[in-house]
Amino acid sequence: MTITTSTPQASFSQPDIPVTQVRQNQGAELDAIAKYRRAANYLAATQIYLKDNVLLREPLKPEHIKDRLLGHWGTCPGINLVYAHLNRLIRRYDANMFLVTGPGHGAPANLANLYLEGSLRDYYPDLSFDEAGVYRLVKQFSWPGGFPSHLYPGIPGTIHEGGELGYALATAFGAVMDNPDLVVACIVGDGESETGPTATAWHGTKFIDPAESGAVLPILHLNGYKIASPSIFGTMSDEELLHLFTGYGYQVRIVEDEDLDADMYASMDWAYQEICRIQQAARSGNRISKPRWPLIILRSPKGWTGIKEADGVPIEGNFRSHQVPLKEVKSNPEHLELLENWFRSYRPEELFDEQGQPFPDILDQCPQGERRMGSNPHTFGGRMRQPLELPDLFNYAVPVEHPEAAQGCQRGESSVSNTYEVGKYLRDVIQQNPNNFRIFCPDELESNRLYKVLDVTQRNYQWPTGPFDGEIGPDGGRIIELLSEHTCQAFLQGYLLTGRHGLFPSYEAFLGIVTTMMDQYAKFLKYSKEFPWRPPVSSLNYLETSTLWRQEHNGFSHQNPGFINSVLDQQADYARVYLPPDANCLLSTIDHCLQSTGYVNLVIANKNPLPQWLSMEDAIAHCRAGGSVWQWASTDDGVDPDVVMVGIGDCPMLEVMAAAQILRNELPELRIRVVNVTDLLILEQNSTHPHGLDDDMFAALFTPDKPVIINFHGYPSLIKQMLFGRPTIERFQINGYQEEGTTTTPFDMQVRNGTSRYHLIMQAIRLAAQKNSRVSARANDRVRHYEYVLAAHGQYICETGEDPDEITNWQWC
Amino acid sequence: MTITTSTPQASFSQPDIPVTQVRQNQGAELDAIAKYRRAANYLAATQIYLKDNVLLREPLKPEHIKDRLLGHWGTCPGINLVYAHLNRLIRRYDANMFLVTGPGHGAPANLANLYLEGSLRDYYPDLSFDEAGVYRLVKQFSWPGGFPSHLYPGIPGTIHEGGELGYALATAFGAVMDNPDLVVACIVGDGESETGPTATAWHGTKFIDPAESGAVLPILHLNGYKIASPSIFGTMSDEELLHLFTGYGYQVRIVEDEDLDADMYASMDWAYQEICRIQQAARSGNRISKPRWPLIILRSPKGWTGIKEADGVPIEGNFRSHQVPLKEVKSNPEHLELLENWFRSYRPEELFDEQGQPFPDILDQCPQGERRMGSNPHTFGGRMRQPLELPDLFNYAVPVEHPEAAQGCQRGESSVSNTYEVGKYLRDVIQQNPNNFRIFCPDELESNRLYKVLDVTQRNYQWPTGPFDGEIGPDGGRIIELLSEHTCQAFLQGYLLTGRHGLFPSYEAFLGIVTTMMDQYAKFLKYSKEFPWRPPVSSLNYLETSTLWRQEHNGFSHQNPGFINSVLDQQADYARVYLPPDANCLLSTIDHCLQSTGYVNLVIANKNPLPQWLSMEDAIAHCRAGGSVWQWASTDDGVDPDVVMVGIGDCPMLEVMAAAQILRNELPELRIRVVNVTDLLILEQNSTHPHGLDDDMFAALFTPDKPVIINFHGYPSLIKQMLFGRPTIERFQINGYQEEGTTTTPFDMQVRNGTSRYHLIMQAIRLAAQKNSRVSARANDRVRHYEYVLAAHGQYICETGEDPDEITNWQWC
Repeated sequence: MTITTSTPQASFSQPDIPVTQVRQNQGAELDAIAKYRRAANYLAATQIYLKDNVLLREPLKPEHIKDRLLGHWGTCPGINLVYAHLNRLIRRYDANMFLVTGPGHGAPANLANLYLEGSLRDYYPDLSFDEAGVYRLVKQFSWPGGFPSHLYPGIPGTIHEGGELGYALATAFGAVMDNPDLVVACIVGDGESETGPTATAWHGTKFIDPAESGAVLPILHLNGYKIASPSIFGTMSDEELLHLFTGYGYQVRIVEDEDLDADMYASMDWAYQEICRIQQAARSGNRISKPRWPLIILRSPKGWTGIKEADGVPIEGNFRSHQVPLKEVKSNPEHLELLENWFRSYRPEELFDEQGQPFPDILDQCPQGERRMGSNPHTFGGRMRQPLELPDLFNYAVPVEHPEAAQGCQRGESSVSNTYEVGKYLRDVIQQNPNNFRIFCPDELESNRLYKVLDVTQRNYQWPTGPFDGEIGPDGGRIIELLSEHTCQAFLQGYLLTGRHGLFPSYEAFLGIVTTMMDQYAKFLKYSKEFPWRPPVSSLNYLETSTLWRQEHNGFSHQNPGFINSVLDQQADYARVYLPPDANCLLSTIDHCLQSTGYVNLVIANKNPLPQWLSMEDAIAHCRAGGSVWQWASTDDGVDPDVVMVGIGDCPMLEVMAAAQILRNELPELRIRVVNVTDLLILEQNSTHPHGLDDDMFAALFTPDKPVIINFHGYPSLIKQMLFGRPTIERFQINGYQEEGTTTTPFDMQVRNGTSRYHLIMQAIRLAAQKNSRVSARANDRVRHYEYVLAAHGQYICETGEDPDEITNWQWC
Repeated sequence: MTITTSTPQASFSQPDIPVTQVRQNQGAELDAIAKYRRAANYLAATQIYLKDNVLLREPLKPEHIKDRLLGHWGTCPGINLVYAHLNRLIRRYDANMFLVTGPGHGAPANLANLYLEGSLRDYYPDLSFDEAGVYRLVKQFSWPGGFPSHLYPGIPGTIHEGGELGYALATAFGAVMDNPDLVVACIVGDGESETGPTATAWHGTKFIDPAESGAVLPILHLNGYKIASPSIFGTMSDEELLHLFTGYGYQVRIVEDEDLDADMYASMDWAYQEICRIQQAARSGNRISKPRWPLIILRSPKGWTGIKEADGVPIEGNFRSHQVPLKEVKSNPEHLELLENWFRSYRPEELFDEQGQPFPDILDQCPQGERRMGSNPHTFGGRMRQPLELPDLFNYAVPVEHPEAAQGCQRGESSVSNTYEVGKYLRDVIQQNPNNFRIFCPDELESNRLYKVLDVTQRNYQWPTGPFDGEIGPDGGRIIELLSEHTCQAFLQGYLLTGRHGLFPSYEAFLGIVTTMMDQYAKFLKYSKEFPWRPPVSSLNYLETSTLWRQEHNGFSHQNPGFINSVLDQQADYARVYLPPDANCLLSTIDHCLQSTGYVNLVIANKNPLPQWLSMEDAIAHCRAGGSVWQWASTDDGVDPDVVMVGIGDCPMLEVMAAAQILRNELPELRIRVVNVTDLLILEQNSTHPHGLDDDMFAALFTPDKPVIINFHGYPSLIKQMLFGRPTIERFQINGYQEEGTTTTPFDMQVRNGTSRYHLIMQAIRLAAQKNSRVSARANDRVRHYEYVLAAHGQYICETGEDPDEITNWQWC
């Protein structure tokens, strides 16, 4: 393969022809585009203000004005300019494109364009091409039951919701991965450009292989202001912007000519041709090293074409255009006149015919069918989605000895890393699905022992690396690793919402970095369900590893299980949390998650060698039930217990098992039932969550009235909120992470948080002794013993630096 | 004032003299620095490996090696290089400096330097300058009870914990604000440089007024690798880096000469002199427009001076040096030999005398007293902290009419915006405290109606802005606004931890963006308390506004109260959550928070006009109690109620009051007690939280046995977890946000989530009717009525676009 080097040049990219010449040559086409923009601007502006007289058939009166003025005008004219020119590009090149709109509240503009191209009408037939259709479009904006002021799943062509800012660009990169023919244009606004997630997402091109993936065309739209003040990027000079984005690796063109249409026309052509050049080079075996993808920076006045000035203050061109430029139009006749003049400056009579239908020369500006950006098939990921080819789970089964069998892994032996085993399975998932499954990870794939996947693939990275840099390179590769959880999440969202599959493994403590993104995504899922034309996409699968219980070496800062709580804040229909206790359960869980659609699945499993408990058959049954009595670990099969001991999570379950074993030997008269819960949501009431156990099944697992000790992986508060409302909850004692951590030993983490086997034993003895005279006779004695054991423990680990051997190498027998 | 313009030049800054000449002229000084580095590297490396024979007095044997090898060598030599040269700079210029270390796990290096400069010994006297001291330093690293592998509050000189990556740079900027003589050096590592928060923090200089604030000296330390693969910045060419950081506004020097010491020596001098030049210009009235602060990029091999190669693979200079370069040294004699050779390459016998004391020429490299970076007074913020001068709260009291009085605001009138009132108070806080109080906000100050502060101050922004851009400019200004919650949080952390005060107002839905940062900060507070030499700093105060109940217009994406849950996940000693019901309570709460130390205070209040309930006297008493019976709103003063109705949060309380009023008129036989809870934590048990009510006080507020309806601002799950363990909790019905939202009306938000007055009325009737025959006779009839009202409501708002007038303009009377 030939590699040509394209070193950064610190100069703006030149158009093929000067802007003035574009105006001369393409004058008619530009005029048509400008007229289209007038229609789009008119529709955008009136959505914010009008509830009647939407085509200005009569003079504007206060009663035509909405009672509550909501919406954001400032960003709309820029979006309309971009949309119009993207339409032109699509028609010229028959391009396969759609748009990700970053600016938060630009929906009036998007809606205007989607109306004109007819995509909106395909899903909302009453938004017809007549006066009634325009009336409904305009009135229902920011109206109860209508469209919100930002994009959401009810708007076709949308894969990114403009709520929390910062993720548009990385979402666009995720969408083009493995879609070689797709170009996703992405508008990044002033506000968004200040966020950290956007600031690092500019590196996205370094993860896009131009041979296997499509391209993102970023359009940084600077109108100079955010809500109430100038934006950082708006105050940067052209030179500063040029340097910055040359540094990121782009070729830059700034569209800021007085003739914005002509400038944008030429720039779009330039950008599309540059994209083609880079792709063709890579696809013909002449890969360009460090390809410099095009970037368009659009400087346009905020609220361009709007009201120039009111009450002696300029409106167009500064932050006063951000939302509703004039708020008192209902009561202030002068302002009402300004508003009417503004609307009439678009000459609506030239835009809509007598029936209210947009004139054909306007509609002709739009592409047709699936080339319309609101109808691009990739934006309906659920329709594009192909289920994964999944290997046979039993090929990866960790052999676990049944009590009656004599081969395989000893039950309770700590010889297997659960995530390592899953790595083998994922390796084969990758091999069987070479084009629609990716792993996104913040540089923790190896640390989390998923490295078997590197046997068949590599990290996908486009900038040159060294010969000893491990499994990394520009030619394909299913692994995307960069140290930005935000970017991993947004890449994955873009990938999923365009119909593909993925996995996001992460350290537990740092997955919470994407808390609000996950919330926004769950909201997107919830809303999506309201629209039958938007079938569900693959679930968003988190594999949360390196959990607090085994981050004893990294210390307190690495100990934070809060992401579980955040997932459970989501509605029951979308949130799933699994804590498989061993490798076979983890395999079964991951296999289930990769098949599922429409959920946020959080799977929690450690990477360290841990005891194995269940054969694959038993694991599948256990996972299907969500939780079950482990009769073989219980006294008398768990029938009529004094105490129920429940483990939720791999490390807490190990302590439960150790406690059960010790009790069986030392206090055989104390009858223990051992339960493991792997699907956390079974604890919810069945009226609250579809996985929730009904009262009978709940009693069957936890008895109707016996004391229950729960040893939970996360914060006890979570179990408390789930059990609330169950009968007799005072019998539940809940252990979990009490935010007590430091650099210490694994067992000391359990001791500090009161989840250790010895704590469990003392709790069980105390609870049983209250009701059971068999136990109470020896209870005090044993409790004192374990208090002593715990007291001695602290000194021991400080002296030796490690846990006693019998704890580290504990085995079930 | 003269303004000179410094336009970006796309060329590397030149040293005053060539590197070779530095070596010639300063040879002896450079040799001394190199020797100091050898000592620091030796101490850093041995901490990772040794538990005995720490000075290599005898040949290295397996039993000298720690049983568990933990730590990160890769970044240490670079930190040591920087530390040594900063020491030299401090000594030469008598500079007031300290270091914020971004790379996560470089603590062995920091500890080595802090040991050599003696700062460590000041707080840990047993880390003495002798063999016993070295032994303890080396052995207790990553050892139970010892120092963790990253910085934490137990290490002097630390204001930034290396857990979650990405916040070092913005923390450093926060630290220098209003500290004009301070220079904070900040090392940003390869991994951290990929995070979004770091990527946008580079803009920090645009918020630093060189006249009133100090300077940050960023050192981007590129050793090219993160955990397991090359870093993005490591793969960027010098030219790309130059462009990028020129674009951000910096002058760049890349330290990469073979003679790193000489190169760093010259670069440090250059950087310090550039800082002085910019500051002197601003302070002498010749402010430089867009001052281009210096930035040093250090390229050094990962694990520099370490093991070059093992088992045929290079170790130094790639990711294999990241953590513990050789893991099998205990069992592999060849590796043990490599290790010993590595350690001996530092010639420990030249570093430590026979008693194990470092030789004087090494110790002489360190500054003295408070000039030592581990002893800089600014890093002990609690010692520097001066309490705020707070104005008299009663000056801002919103007059609220007592039942017996006849003047002031009508109780229950919706005429006052609570945040607007607080804005007046904050205005005067700013005026009375011109140098140690700042507001950090993601461009929402005006939107959240705190704009009265702009009467006395402005947004602090250093890049040129336009004449109509509002209250913004380079000359001082207490307001920092940029659209990055991450950066706001880190700025504030840096500001607080150096002894100052601040407030972080934010939209509720987007405060969760800093969830994990808040968690890390709470951990920092918890750890800090263990060290009496680290007195508490001012609390971190969040003002969470624009809450979900009044984000009906912005829709579902703006409706997320999850940050409350995240704050409550923190330990009780550090977390406080307040939901003041009106302006006077909000004023009292903010006043309290600004006086407090050591907490994370979350205050939740809306900006929209809402009813006022309590006079300032009553508000103060109510806030002190945390919650109380509002007798004047209850039936018969709330004695012997049928039902207790509890509001927590301003909007939910409004519904409680409306329900109480309707019930009083329509069903006077149903006896209601009205309670407001403003301090959420009183619901916790007193064994769990210091604010928690004991059982008697709990019963006094909520009765021992009557049904209680709680109308809560956030997720009901939160109240459930807090009530768990209280007796008779089955009598509590908990309403709150059920993750049901859209673009709609304010009242419809209540309806969708079952928190509306009508829902409360129906709940109260149903509960009371079970036990009270007075009520039950008319109960069914009234419930049917309100079911009808609710059914009609949805249609009404879709038709009109707004709530019925009697709901919007509801008044208590």
